[in-house]
Amino acid sequence: MSFENRRVGTADRVGMAPGALLEDTHSVPAQIELIHYREHDSSAIDPASLQAMQTAIAAHDGVTWLHVQGLPSKAFLEEMGARFGLHPLLLEDIQSRDQRPKLDEYVEHLFAVFSVPRWQGDGAVLEQFSLLLGDGYVISIHDAQSDITDILRARLAQSSSRLRQHGADYLFYSLIDLIIDQIYPLLETFGGTVDELEERLVTNPGHRALPDIQSAKRTLNQLRRQLWPTREVISHLIRGVSNEPLLEAGLRPYLNDLYDHTVSVMDMLETYRDTVTGLIDIHLSSVSNRLNEIMRTLTVISTLFIPLTFVTGIYGMNFGNNADSPFAMPELRWYFGYPLILSVMVAVALGMILFFKRRGWIFSRDRF
Amino acid sequence: MSFENRRVGTADRVGMAPGALLEDTHSVPAQIELIHYREHDSSAIDPASLQAMQTAIAAHDGVTWLHVQGLPSKAFLEEMGARFGLHPLLLEDIQSRDQRPKLDEYVEHLFAVFSVPRWQGDGAVLEQFSLLLGDGYVISIHDAQSDITDILRARLAQSSSRLRQHGADYLFYSLIDLIIDQIYPLLETFGGTVDELEERLVTNPGHRALPDIQSAKRTLNQLRRQLWPTREVISHLIRGVSNEPLLEAGLRPYLNDLYDHTVSVMDMLETYRDTVTGLIDIHLSSVSNRLNEIMRTLTVISTLFIPLTFVTGIYGMNFGNNADSPFAMPELRWYFGYPLILSVMVAVALGMILFFKRRGWIFSRDRF
Amino acid sequence: MSFENRRVGTADRVGMAPGALLEDTHSVPAQIELIHYREHDSSAIDPASLQAMQTAIAAHDGVTWLHVQGLPSKAFLEEMGARFGLHPLLLEDIQSRDQRPKLDEYVEHLFAVFSVPRWQGDGAVLEQFSLLLGDGYVISIHDAQSDITDILRARLAQSSSRLRQHGADYLFYSLIDLIIDQIYPLLETFGGTVDELEERLVTNPGHRALPDIQSAKRTLNQLRRQLWPTREVISHLIRGVSNEPLLEAGLRPYLNDLYDHTVSVMDMLETYRDTVTGLIDIHLSSVSNRLNEIMRTLTVISTLFIPLTFVTGIYGMNFGNNADSPFAMPELRWYFGYPLILSVMVAVALGMILFFKRRGWIFSRDRF
Amino acid sequence: MSFENRRVGTADRVGMAPGALLEDTHSVPAQIELIHYREHDSSAIDPASLQAMQTAIAAHDGVTWLHVQGLPSKAFLEEMGARFGLHPLLLEDIQSRDQRPKLDEYVEHLFAVFSVPRWQGDGAVLEQFSLLLGDGYVISIHDAQSDITDILRARLAQSSSRLRQHGADYLFYSLIDLIIDQIYPLLETFGGTVDELEERLVTNPGHRALPDIQSAKRTLNQLRRQLWPTREVISHLIRGVSNEPLLEAGLRPYLNDLYDHTVSVMDMLETYRDTVTGLIDIHLSSVSNRLNEIMRTLTVISTLFIPLTFVTGIYGMNFGNNADSPFAMPELRWYFGYPLILSVMVAVALGMILFFKRRGWIFSRDRF
Amino acid sequence: MSFENRRVGTADRVGMAPGALLEDTHSVPAQIELIHYREHDSSAIDPASLQAMQTAIAAHDGVTWLHVQGLPSKAFLEEMGARFGLHPLLLEDIQSRDQRPKLDEYVEHLFAVFSVPRWQGDGAVLEQFSLLLGDGYVISIHDAQSDITDILRARLAQSSSRLRQHGADYLFYSLIDLIIDQIYPLLETFGGTVDELEERLVTNPGHRALPDIQSAKRTLNQLRRQLWPTREVISHLIRGVSNEPLLEAGLRPYLNDLYDHTVSVMDMLETYRDTVTGLIDIHLSSVSNRLNEIMRTLTVISTLFIPLTFVTGIYGMNFGNNADSPFAMPELRWYFGYPLILSVMVAVALGMILFFKRRGWIFSRDRF
Repeated sequence: MSFENRRVGTADRVGMAPGALLEDTHSVPAQIELIHYREHDSSAIDPASLQAMQTAIAAHDGVTWLHVQGLPSKAFLEEMGARFGLHPLLLEDIQSRDQRPKLDEYVEHLFAVFSVPRWQGDGAVLEQFSLLLGDGYVISIHDAQSDITDILRARLAQSSSRLRQHGADYLFYSLIDLIIDQIYPLLETFGGTVDELEERLVTNPGHRALPDIQSAKRTLNQLRRQLWPTREVISHLIRGVSNEPLLEAGLRPYLNDLYDHTVSVMDMLETYRDTVTGLIDIHLSSVSNRLNEIMRTLTVISTLFIPLTFVTGIYGMNFGNNADSPFAMPELRWYFGYPLILSVMVAVALGMILFFKRRGWIFSRDRF
Repeated sequence: MSFENRRVGTADRVGMAPGALLEDTHSVPAQIELIHYREHDSSAIDPASLQAMQTAIAAHDGVTWLHVQGLPSKAFLEEMGARFGLHPLLLEDIQSRDQRPKLDEYVEHLFAVFSVPRWQGDGAVLEQFSLLLGDGYVISIHDAQSDITDILRARLAQSSSRLRQHGADYLFYSLIDLIIDQIYPLLETFGGTVDELEERLVTNPGHRALPDIQSAKRTLNQLRRQLWPTREVISHLIRGVSNEPLLEAGLRPYLNDLYDHTVSVMDMLETYRDTVTGLIDIHLSSVSNRLNEIMRTLTVISTLFIPLTFVTGIYGMNFGNNADSPFAMPELRWYFGYPLILSVMVAVALGMILFFKRRGWIFSRDRF
Repeated sequence: MSFENRRVGTADRVGMAPGALLEDTHSVPAQIELIHYREHDSSAIDPASLQAMQTAIAAHDGVTWLHVQGLPSKAFLEEMGARFGLHPLLLEDIQSRDQRPKLDEYVEHLFAVFSVPRWQGDGAVLEQFSLLLGDGYVISIHDAQSDITDILRARLAQSSSRLRQHGADYLFYSLIDLIIDQIYPLLETFGGTVDELEERLVTNPGHRALPDIQSAKRTLNQLRRQLWPTREVISHLIRGVSNEPLLEAGLRPYLNDLYDHTVSVMDMLETYRDTVTGLIDIHLSSVSNRLNEIMRTLTVISTLFIPLTFVTGIYGMNFGNNADSPFAMPELRWYFGYPLILSVMVAVALGMILFFKRRGWIFSRDRF
Repeated sequence: MSFENRRVGTADRVGMAPGALLEDTHSVPAQIELIHYREHDSSAIDPASLQAMQTAIAAHDGVTWLHVQGLPSKAFLEEMGARFGLHPLLLEDIQSRDQRPKLDEYVEHLFAVFSVPRWQGDGAVLEQFSLLLGDGYVISIHDAQSDITDILRARLAQSSSRLRQHGADYLFYSLIDLIIDQIYPLLETFGGTVDELEERLVTNPGHRALPDIQSAKRTLNQLRRQLWPTREVISHLIRGVSNEPLLEAGLRPYLNDLYDHTVSVMDMLETYRDTVTGLIDIHLSSVSNRLNEIMRTLTVISTLFIPLTFVTGIYGMNFGNNADSPFAMPELRWYFGYPLILSVMVAVALGMILFFKRRGWIFSRDRF
Repeated sequence: MSFENRRVGTADRVGMAPGALLEDTHSVPAQIELIHYREHDSSAIDPASLQAMQTAIAAHDGVTWLHVQGLPSKAFLEEMGARFGLHPLLLEDIQSRDQRPKLDEYVEHLFAVFSVPRWQGDGAVLEQFSLLLGDGYVISIHDAQSDITDILRARLAQSSSRLRQHGADYLFYSLIDLIIDQIYPLLETFGGTVDELEERLVTNPGHRALPDIQSAKRTLNQLRRQLWPTREVISHLIRGVSNEPLLEAGLRPYLNDLYDHTVSVMDMLETYRDTVTGLIDIHLSSVSNRLNEIMRTLTVISTLFIPLTFVTGIYGMNFGNNADSPFAMPELRWYFGYPLILSVMVAVALGMILFFKRRGWIFSRDRF
C-alpha cells in the first residue's frame, strides 16, 4: 500500500467543498478504450467522443464498455458526469486515488471501487480501480500505468466467449474477478520474501532482521485491511442491490465463486501472519542464542585460566626465601618441582575441559 | 485528549440534579455569529438577541445558522433552551465539555456532539463541538479559541455555493464534514512524530524512548476511542432518524461519503498502531543489542588478558631459585628467554583476536 | 471488589432450595427510612410498620419511598415479600450481597441490582444496591454502612425539586444516577494511585512494583466486569420493559444520559488500562536497566584492571635474575624503570577510560 | 477435565454407524432409583422394571423420576429407548461420556447434557450428567461414583417441599441447579491452589513453577469451555423451546436465576484468569530477580578483589632488585611499607564497599 | 495442510475464464465405483458409462451412488456436467483441489466441499472431498489415493443396514460423518507429537525446539481454519436449504450430532493450542534456565579463586626483601608461615562454598 499517497491524497482535499473536483496535476494523459459488443460481433468505437457511447447505449442493443487507463482529466470526468448523470461525490471518488474498496448504490447505476495490489520494490502498492455498472454499459477506470484488462478484450474478440453471451453485469463481474486474480501472484512474491527472511534469520540472525519483519507485518496488515472491504463489497452484491435489474439472477454462482476466492486469499494471509509472527520469536531466540554462545565461550575461557593463575600465584609467593623452615614451600626445592606443577596445571585444565564438555557447555551444537 | 479535563469536567457534576446547569467560571465570553441565508442572498443578523433568530425561523424562508465560538454563558444557554424548547439534559451536554461523540434524537430536533482533535504541545487535545439541527436552523457551539467555521462562511458568501442551494440539513452535514477534515492534518503531525521516534530509536536507542512510545500509544488509543462513536453517529444518520423530514433523501450520498472518511481515518490509525506496537520491539531489541555489544567487548578484553596473565604467573613462580635442578624453570636462564616469552604472549593474543574476529565476535557491525 | 465476600456469599447457599432465605447472621440492624411525597408536600412515615406504606400506596396519590440502609433481617424481607407480592428469588437476591448488576422484570414491578464501588484500604469494595420499582413506590436496599441517599432526601425537601414533580420512575432513575455518580470520585482516587505507582516505578524501580501493578490491573478488571452489566441494565431500560406503564416516555432522555455516563466511565477505565498495561513494560525495562547499569559498571572496573594486572604480571616474572643475558628484562635495571612502568599503566588506564567514555559506556545517563 | 477420556471416548466410535451403541465394558453395574411423587405423597418404585414407570407416567398423575447413578448397560439403554421412544443418537450421547453440555429438542421430550466438575488429585475431572424431561417424568443419568442427588430425594421426602408442589419441569430445573451448585466448592478448591501457588512463587520462585502455572491455566480454560455451552443451554431454555407445554411459564424466574449463577461463575473464572496470567509475569520476574541477585553479588566480589590484586601485582614486580636507582620501588624498602600497603588495600576495599552500598548494589532488599 | 498445493492450485487458474476446466496433468487415472441400492438389495453398476446411472436415477427407485477415487479427467467431468446439469463453476471447484469447505445450493442439487485431513511425514495434508446430492443420487469425489469409503460399501452390503432404509440424503450425511471421523485419529497422532515435544523440551531444551513449536502451531492453525468452515457448512444444513425436499426432516438429529462432533473437535484443538502456546514459555524458560545454570557455575568458580589469588598476590609482593624492618612481611619468615597461609586459603574457600551453598547458589536443583 502506498501509505504516503493515501495520506497526501485525502489531505489534499481538506477544506474543499464536497463533490468539487481537483485541478489536473498529472502530466501523462489517460488512455481511453471504448468497445461495443453483442453476442455476434464486437467492435471498438472512437473513444474521442462520449457522444458515440451514449448513442450506443440508447440503442439498448449489446454492451458498451469504456475503459480508462490512468487518471482521467477533470474535463473528461465532468463530461462523463454530465452525460451519464453521475453524482459529484462519485466523480470525486474516482479522482481521489486512495479510496477503500466499497460499493455505492445509486438509483441508475452501481459504483464500486477496488484496489489492485502490485509489488513494487519490496512492498505492495495499491492502485485504485473504479467500476461503474449502468443499464447496458460498464465504465472502468484503472489509475495505473500497466493495463490488466487486455486479457478481457482478447476474450471479447473470440466469438465463442461466454462474455459475449452475457450482459453488462457479467462484464462487471469479470472485471472484479480480474482484480482479485491479481492478488495471487503478489501473494506468491510476498510468500517468497517471507521464506527468504526466515532462511536468513536462521543462517545470519543479527543482520537488520527486525525492521524487515516489521515491514513484512505491515504489508500483511495493509493487504488484510484492503481485503476485508473487498469481501464486504462482494458479500453486498450477493445479498442483492436495490436496483435489482442491474444484476441478473444467473450471476449469483459467479459472485459466490468470487466470495470464495477472497476468503481463500484471506486464509493465505492468515497463514502468512502465523509465519511472520513466529519470525519475531525465532529472531529474538536466535539473537539471544548467538550472544549466549559468545558469552558462554568467553566465560569458559576465563574460568579455565583463573584456577591455573591461582596455582602460579601460590608458587609466586615468597615463602621459599625462608631457608630455616622445612615447611617453607619445599616444592620449590624439589628436583622435579617445576615439571610436576606444570603437569598438575595441565591435569586441572584437562579435568575442567572434560567437566565442561560432559555437561555440554562447550563443543555442543545446541541452537534455538 | 485532554485527559485531565475529562476527569474533572464530569466529576464537577457529581451530586448535582440531572439537567441543572453549572455556574459560569470561565472569564472569556463566547463569540456569537448569526447568519441567515437563502438561495439568493446571505446576511448576518445581530447576534445580541435570539428574538431576531426566532422570527427568521418562524418565517420558514431560508436557513438560519447560529454559531457560538467558546463556551456560552449559563444565561445564554437558558434563554436558548427556553426559545427553542431544548431539553435540560441537552443544555447540560453542551456545557459539560467532555462528552463522547453522540447523536440524540429529540422530537423537534437532532442534537449531535463531536470532538475536534487539535495537536497541542506533544499530544492531542479534544475540543467539544455541539450541533443542533432544527426545522430551518442550525445551532453550532464550538468550545475552543480558534474558529474552524470561517471557511463555511466564506462559501456562504459565494452566490454559486452549493450550501446556499440546500437546506439546513446540508449545513449540518457540512459542519460534520469540516470536523472530520480536522483529523487529517492532525494525523499527519502525529505520523511525523511517530516517524521521528522510530528514527531516534535506531540512532540513539536509550534515551527515554519507552515513555514516549507509551504516550504515542495512548494518544492513538484516545483518538480511536473518539472515532468509534463518531462513526456510530454517522452510521446512525445514514440508517435514518425518527423525525425524517429533518434530513432530506438527497443527503444520503454525502453521509455515505462522510462514513467512508471516518473509516479511512480509522484505517490510518490502525496502520499507525502497527508501527507503534512494532516500536516497542525495536526499542527493546535496540537497548538489548547495545548492552550486548558493551558486555561482549568488555568480556573479550578480559578473556584476552586472562591467559596472558596466566603466562606471566608461570614465570613469576619461584622455582628458578632452585639452582640444583635442570628442570627448575630453565627458560628463565635462557639467553633469549624473556623476548621469547613476550613473543609467545603476542602470538597467543593475536591468535585469540583472529579467532574472535573469525567468529564475528569483534569488529562486526551486527545490529538489531 | 471484595473478592472473598463474593466467593463465600454464593457458596453459603450451595445445597439450599432456590428462593429459601438464609438465617440472620449480622449483628448490626438495618436503618429503615420511609418517605411519602407529592408535588406539594413530602413527609416521613414511621418505618416501624410496612402497613402504613401499603396504605399510602393504595391511595394512588404521590410516591412512597422505602430505603433500607444495611442488610434487612429475614423477618423484614419475608414481611415485605408477603405485602408486595415479591418472588422468593427476588428476596434471595437482596440477601445474597454479591449479585452482578442486573434487571429482572416481574409482572407487577421492576427489580434491579447494582454495585456501589467504594475505595477501601488500597482496593475497590463493591456494595450491593437493590432497587424495586412498583406502581407508585420505590424500595431501595443498600447493603453498606454509609448512606449515599441523603442528597436525594435533601432535594425532596425542596419544594422546587424536579423529583417532587415526577413519579416513582424518576426517583428510580435518580437512585441509579446517584449510584453511577459514586464511580467518579473512586476513579479519581484510583487514577491518583496509578499515577503514584508510575512515579515510583521511574524513581525507585525495584520495590515490590509487580504485585502492585497486578493489583491495580485486577481492580481495573473487576470494575470493568461490574460496569458491563450496569450498562446492559440501562440499555435494557432504554429499549423498554414489558410492563410499560412503570416507565414514562419522558424518562427516555434521562436514561440516555445515564447510558452516556456509563460509556464515558468505561472509556476512562480503558485509558487507565492502557496506562497500567504500559506500567509493566516500564517496570521490566526499568529493572533491567538498573541491573544493566550495575553489571556494566562492575564489568568496566574489572576490564580496566585486568590489562594493568597483566603488566604487573610481566614485571613479576623472574627473568631478571638471569644476569648473563642483556635481553633478560633490562627494564628492571633501568634508572627510571619503575616510574616509567607506572606511567605506562596510568596511560593505559586513562586511554581505556577515555575509550569507554567516548562510546558512552560510562558516565552516561541513558535510562529506559 | 479428564483430557485423555475425552479423546479416547470419541475415538472409540470412529467408523461405527451413527446411533449404534457400544458393547458394555465397565464392570460396576449402575445404581437405579425410581421415585414417583405427587403434592401429597412420594414413594419409591421398584426400579427393576421400567414397565412400572411407564404405567405411572400413563396415569398422568404426579411426577416420575428415574435416576441412574453410573453408566447404564447397553440392554438397559435399549429398553429405555424402546419404551420412551428415544432417538438412537440420544442413547449414543448418554453412553459417550464426553459430550459437551448441550440441549437437544425432540418432539416428545427435551434432552440435556451437562458436565459435573469434580476435583481429583490436582486437576478438575468432568463427569457427564444426562437429563431427559418428558411429559410428567424426568430421567437423569450421572456417569460417576458419588451421588449428588441425595439432597433432592431428602427434599422430596418433606411434605412442605416446593418440589412436590411443582411439575416435572421444576425437578428438571432443580437438577440443573444442583449441577451448577457443584462448581462453587470446586472453584474454592481451585482458588486455594492458585493462592498457594502465588505464595510459593514469591517465597521459593525456582521450583517447577511454570508447569504448575500452565496446568492451572489449562484447568481454567477447560472449565471455561464447559461453562460457555452450559450458559448457552440455560439461555436456550429461557428463550423457550418448541414443545412449550414441557416448561411452565412460572419456571422463567428460576431459569433467570440459573443464568445469573453461570454468569457469576464465569466472572469468578475471569478473575482467576487475571491472577493466573499475572503469575507468569511474577514467576519470570522472580526467577530473573533471583538470578540477578546471584550474579550481582558474585560480580561485586570479583570487582572488589581485582583492583586489590592489581596492587599486589605492583609490589610483586621485580624492580626493587635494582639497588642503583632510588626510583626502583622505594616503597619496598620503607620501614612501614608493608603495613602501609595493607592499609591502602583495606581503604580501597572499604571505599568500594561504601560506594556499592550507597548505590544500593549490595545489602539492599529490592525484589520484584 | 499442503500449503504449497493450495497456493499453486489457485494460482494456476489466474487469467483463465471462470468455469473453464484445466487440461489433465495427472497420470494416475481415477477409480470409479457406481452402486445402486434399495431397501432390499444393493448392486454395483458398470461405471464405464454414466448412461446407466442416469437411467437408474430416472427410475425414481432407490439410491444411486457414484464414487470417484482420485482426480477425474476433464472429459469425465464434462460428461458428468452435461448429464446432470451441473454448473461450470461447480466442475471447476471439483477440479481445483484446494477449496475451503463450503456448501453451494443449486436449484436441482446441493454441492459441498470438505477437506479430509491426513497425517503425512510430520504435518497434516488436506485432501479435497467433493459431495453432490441430487434427487435420488449422490456423487462423491475424493482427490486422494487411499479410499475411506470402503466402510460404507461394507455397511450397504448388509441387509439390516440403516443406510439401505433411508434415502440419498442419509448417504450424503453418512459421507460427511465419515469425513469428520477422519479427524479423530489425526488429532491423536498430533497430540502424541505435541506430548513428545513437551517431553523433549524438559529433558533436552536446546535442540531446535522453536521451529518445531512453530510448525505445531501452524498445523494447529491450519486445522482450525479448515474446521471453522466445516462447522459453517453443517450449521447451514441444519438451518435448512432452499430446495427442501433434498433433506428429509428426520435427518435433523443426525446433522445436530455432526455439529456436536465438529464443536468437540474444535474444543480439542483449543486445548492443544493452550498446550502449544505454553510450550514456547516452557522452552524459553528452559533455555534461559540452562544458560543461567552454566553462567552461575562459571561465575561461582571465578569468584572462588579471585580472593585466593589475591592472597597469593600479597605474599608474592617483594616487601620481604627489606630485612631491616620487622613489619616487612614477617609472615614469610615464620616457621609455619606457608602451611598457615595455605590453611587460611582453604578456610576461605570452604567458607565461600558454604556461603554459596546456604544461599542455594550451587548444588541446587532448581529448574523452570
